[in-house]
Amino acid sequence: MRAWYFAERPDGEPTMDSFDLRETERPTPQNGELLVRVHYLSVDPYMRGRMRAGESYAEPWAVGDVLQGGVVGEVVASEHDAYEAGEFVTGRGTWAEYSVLDGDDAMAVNPDVAGLPAYLGVLGMPGRTAYFGLLEVAEPRPGDTVVVSGAAGAVGSTVGQIASLNGCRVVGFAGTDEKTAWLTDDLGFDAAINYETTDDYRAALDDAAPDGVDVYFDNVGGPITDAVFTTLNVDARVAVCGQIAHYNDESVPTGPRKLPQLIAPRAKVEGLLVSDYATRFGVARDRLEAWVAAGTIDHRETVVEGLENAPDAFLGLFSGDNIGKQVVRVE
Amino acid sequence: MRAWYFAERPDGEPTMDSFDLRETERPTPQNGELLVRVHYLSVDPYMRGRMRAGESYAEPWAVGDVLQGGVVGEVVASEHDAYEAGEFVTGRGTWAEYSVLDGDDAMAVNPDVAGLPAYLGVLGMPGRTAYFGLLEVAEPRPGDTVVVSGAAGAVGSTVGQIASLNGCRVVGFAGTDEKTAWLTDDLGFDAAINYETTDDYRAALDDAAPDGVDVYFDNVGGPITDAVFTTLNVDARVAVCGQIAHYNDESVPTGPRKLPQLIAPRAKVEGLLVSDYATRFGVARDRLEAWVAAGTIDHRETVVEGLENAPDAFLGLFSGDNIGKQVVRVE
Repeated sequence: MRAWYFAERPDGEPTMDSFDLRETERPTPQNGELLVRVHYLSVDPYMRGRMRAGESYAEPWAVGDVLQGGVVGEVVASEHDAYEAGEFVTGRGTWAEYSVLDGDDAMAVNPDVAGLPAYLGVLGMPGRTAYFGLLEVAEPRPGDTVVVSGAAGAVGSTVGQIASLNGCRVVGFAGTDEKTAWLTDDLGFDAAINYETTDDYRAALDDAAPDGVDVYFDNVGGPITDAVFTTLNVDARVAVCGQIAHYNDESVPTGPRKLPQLIAPRAKVEGLLVSDYATRFGVARDRLEAWVAAGTIDHRETVVEGLENAPDAFLGLFSGDNIGKQVVRVE
Repeated sequence: MRAWYFAERPDGEPTMDSFDLRETERPTPQNGELLVRVHYLSVDPYMRGRMRAGESYAEPWAVGDVLQGGVVGEVVASEHDAYEAGEFVTGRGTWAEYSVLDGDDAMAVNPDVAGLPAYLGVLGMPGRTAYFGLLEVAEPRPGDTVVVSGAAGAVGSTVGQIASLNGCRVVGFAGTDEKTAWLTDDLGFDAAINYETTDDYRAALDDAAPDGVDVYFDNVGGPITDAVFTTLNVDARVAVCGQIAHYNDESVPTGPRKLPQLIAPRAKVEGLLVSDYATRFGVARDRLEAWVAAGTIDHRETVVEGLENAPDAFLGLFSGDNIGKQVVRVE
């Protein structure tokens, strides 16, 4: 089978030099494991952190190892009581045609709810991140104005829709007119700002969020975040989920200091990792599946065809090529 | 009587040009008010914010008005049932020899507990800020390492001692050897760092806080804060009480971005204003009075003599002239 290996750590923006596609032996599942034919592979911004040798919130990838990532596919051999060959599952696998998954960590896929790629997006890790990050870190209240950066991504698009369900006014930042149209026309965002064609983010926010910002769900960082911090309301809550604008920085990025801006609004800023909510992943999955099945929450996946194009799909995350969840079709 | 008036808004570091000492009529208390002979006047860093026309967390001072501030003194005429002439009270007054106080807002002074100046420091607004900011925003737990900037100030010195009572390891940043000696020798701080004579704050923290930082109580901002943010533990809490390093900045200060540093530790950063806890000021006062009376919490005041020197006392806050609470002796 083919699999992608981590060839070298990137310096700044990653290139193909970090990736090496090789022929290798199909792995063999041990007790409690599943061998899965990978149908779709997930590429995610957090993986940039795994490319670093030093501190990150995810374990660093070892140079020379096969790359890891979320997958969804068909069980071809099971050494776990809960699954048998022919079933479809999702879990933590590898950038490869076949992956061995920990059966306890895997989740069953319900094909009546959505297609396989959705289980890497709204029904997978990004959806759970949106669910817990918004509801438990940002704690939105009906009537709040919620601003989301990276709003057309897998996490952001789900955050905005849950915030709408929660009775909030929702404003999204995204980087193309197609994305902003999707947010407002299909997902029910109250307003969307194209950050590529807008010069003055603060002025755009004054239009889109005239009562100020009660909740900011940040996937991006940089100048969008700088603008949002100038218009935080009293008791504002900021959930720091991602900072993709800074993932390729090789030195500590600088910008406007934010701590002085927190005192007057008594604002709270909090980092989050979805893994902290692992004991309740099932709760989020059930809720999200119900919303998706009912059409209450919409979703979209951008599919790159072929395992050989997985690095391109990953690199495209940093230029915003994806609408909704970026996945790679392997089978 | 003499009183200080606000002459003009400063640009950057305030100078004497902002202050005007004038002879004026002694005010007359109305129903519910007290006329107080001011014995001590409080000067506080937050007053720099009141000098600005625009947004601040305190109401801007109007040019031409008498300056406002906390005072402690003797009631010379009372129009409030709870007080009579000859009693000592503290409350919100003016930079003047006599102030009219709102009787409902005033608090009685207990001379058996501490001298009058302490009622502007550990037993006044700074002590309440320390109490609620540490215990309710930073939420220290026994075993936590707590770092305090501006540790030899009125707020910081109280924060550190309450943190010690709470079973924490306490590390303070201060700007002279006399201050750091006071923290470690008299107040029971576990370590103190002289930021004026230390080049590498992170290395100093690695020595003083070898297990990382669980709580950071920030009164200062700037490079000290930058260093602390590089060593936050998982679940760290940062209480942003003040940012005196930036109060004289006329444009938005820049520095290392901190949001990317919050994700891995899932750290929480929160601004605070003591006025939010007004309904429970009595709880804090009772607790702090008991600790001070028992000698459990130590305190110190730096006294500038004479109302005419009040602006100097205020300006000295920005160069760290004070140890403990800076007050002005008026009578």
